[in-house]
Amino acid sequence: MQLEFFGTGAGVPGKFRNVSSVALRLLDEINEVWLFDCGEGTQQQILRSTLKPRKINKIFITHLHGDHIFGLPGLLSSRSFQGGDEQLTIYGPKGIKEFVQVSLRVSQTKLGYKINYVDLDEPGIIYEGPKFTVIAAKLEHQVESWGYRVVEHSHPGELMVDKLKADDIPAGPIYGKLKKGETVQLSNGRVIDGKEYIGPAQKGRIVTILGDTRKTPNIQKLSQNANVVVHESTFGKGEAKLARNYYHSTNVQAAIMAKSSGVERLLLTHISARYTAKMARELQKQAREIFPNTKVVKDFDFIDIPFEKKED
Amino acid sequence: MQLEFFGTGAGVPGKFRNVSSVALRLLDEINEVWLFDCGEGTQQQILRSTLKPRKINKIFITHLHGDHIFGLPGLLSSRSFQGGDEQLTIYGPKGIKEFVQVSLRVSQTKLGYKINYVDLDEPGIIYEGPKFTVIAAKLEHQVESWGYRVVEHSHPGELMVDKLKADDIPAGPIYGKLKKGETVQLSNGRVIDGKEYIGPAQKGRIVTILGDTRKTPNIQKLSQNANVVVHESTFGKGEAKLARNYYHSTNVQAAIMAKSSGVERLLLTHISARYTAKMARELQKQAREIFPNTKVVKDFDFIDIPFEKKED
Repeated sequence: MQLEFFGTGAGVPGKFRNVSSVALRLLDEINEVWLFDCGEGTQQQILRSTLKPRKINKIFITHLHGDHIFGLPGLLSSRSFQGGDEQLTIYGPKGIKEFVQVSLRVSQTKLGYKINYVDLDEPGIIYEGPKFTVIAAKLEHQVESWGYRVVEHSHPGELMVDKLKADDIPAGPIYGKLKKGETVQLSNGRVIDGKEYIGPAQKGRIVTILGDTRKTPNIQKLSQNANVVVHESTFGKGEAKLARNYYHSTNVQAAIMAKSSGVERLLLTHISARYTAKMARELQKQAREIFPNTKVVKDFDFIDIPFEKKED
Repeated sequence: MQLEFFGTGAGVPGKFRNVSSVALRLLDEINEVWLFDCGEGTQQQILRSTLKPRKINKIFITHLHGDHIFGLPGLLSSRSFQGGDEQLTIYGPKGIKEFVQVSLRVSQTKLGYKINYVDLDEPGIIYEGPKFTVIAAKLEHQVESWGYRVVEHSHPGELMVDKLKADDIPAGPIYGKLKKGETVQLSNGRVIDGKEYIGPAQKGRIVTILGDTRKTPNIQKLSQNANVVVHESTFGKGEAKLARNYYHSTNVQAAIMAKSSGVERLLLTHISARYTAKMARELQKQAREIFPNTKVVKDFDFIDIPFEKKED
């Protein structure tokens, strides 16, 4: 499970940051890649990574501003051209279907796969699969904007068969009971507590990816105890008023939220071209004063999301 | 007058060639830039050049395939964001207006300038200004495709005032007559032939930019005596049959056409990603065997278009 950033800029592409797009790579987990937003040039950025467009089978759009969607028709076309034939689902605000369909119709593009459109309407669970659940909630921007919370399901602990064998507990139907944590009496009268033979449970990871937004309570709800939160940072310290007026956030607001929400790591993105590389480091420094595990991401940053330390 | 190539690839963007777009820089002539096609990522390519999007005031679309139009909404948005406020005209097949308008409406983009749409319908003159005329004609592709011939108006020769003065011909209303090439008698009886005092006429340049097409007579009509022809070369020598089936051209077809049409220079573009740099040089070599002044262009090639040697 990794995040790969293809665009970390704001509004218009700059020389050093393309417009918004980030992939959540779930190749090890479910052999899928999920894309969040798709600004113009996303497919060109993907060409510079190891990611194959045909692996992308879900695209989540946070909002319909051009810097978050204008790369969709090209990416969808190239995915087909490169042999992608599996259905793809696009989640996003109402309007995305019209944009994609008109683009494909006018350009007379025929895709080799079906697109399933899910218009976001009510907040809540928008996807539930065997290993992941995605929850969406509305944020506050000039236009309808959504945040996504991707929750990996927890794995119960595995039965420690080697330990059972070492303790001379014979294999058989009782293994099933022990795996459930039950206490079992063997034929020789020995009492075995299953809980002693179950490995640690693996808590699932949580990744929260937010669209453009100003400070609003739903950010915290989506981010609670997340391993990673991807948060916009269009403005810097001392610009909270500007940020509010333009429906954006500051680095400091994001850091305060992360600190109070039990977040493990904060990734700041949607960095305006008015920030030089040096100023972007300053944005990071200001945020770290509040929430040390903060990073201002750059295009092509590849962020591994490890499991937290195992539960006992 | 220069051509600046922003995308010289075919179909989908590759690592080394972006999808189609080329600018005709008329900054010295009329302080304008005209863009021909606008594949996805054109605005990002422009960021790497000295060109300012707000200088672009005409966009000519050859056909509606995605690799020629998907960069339009982003370029138009950024042009506005960067303060462009002058009207822009888009010429192209019917459908371009719907694509642009839906893209801007869905993304809630408000432009700071007006767009004037000219749907191509009948071949012929589609623009006539004080210094340039543009003629369009239909080509042969799977979808409606057009070629454009940009004709610079010829300049009549200038009156050589320095020579008149050196020959002791006094300034006055007779200068107007001399400029028209008339013969004038001075009050002292001296006869002056205006033609001897008019500099060489400056023949206007002709630039032909073609959309995707297979071999068809209109290519020749548009290219006749052009200084520069930009011609697709999706296929190579020996692939004429493939080219015909896919409604594309070979390098050899383009070279034969250039040779028989009095073309000065042939620029081959729309090079498939299946051609490596080495193979692209081979495409060029094959074409040069027929028409020596051929170049296979690359992204960011900057081609100056000088005047031909002056007429006497």
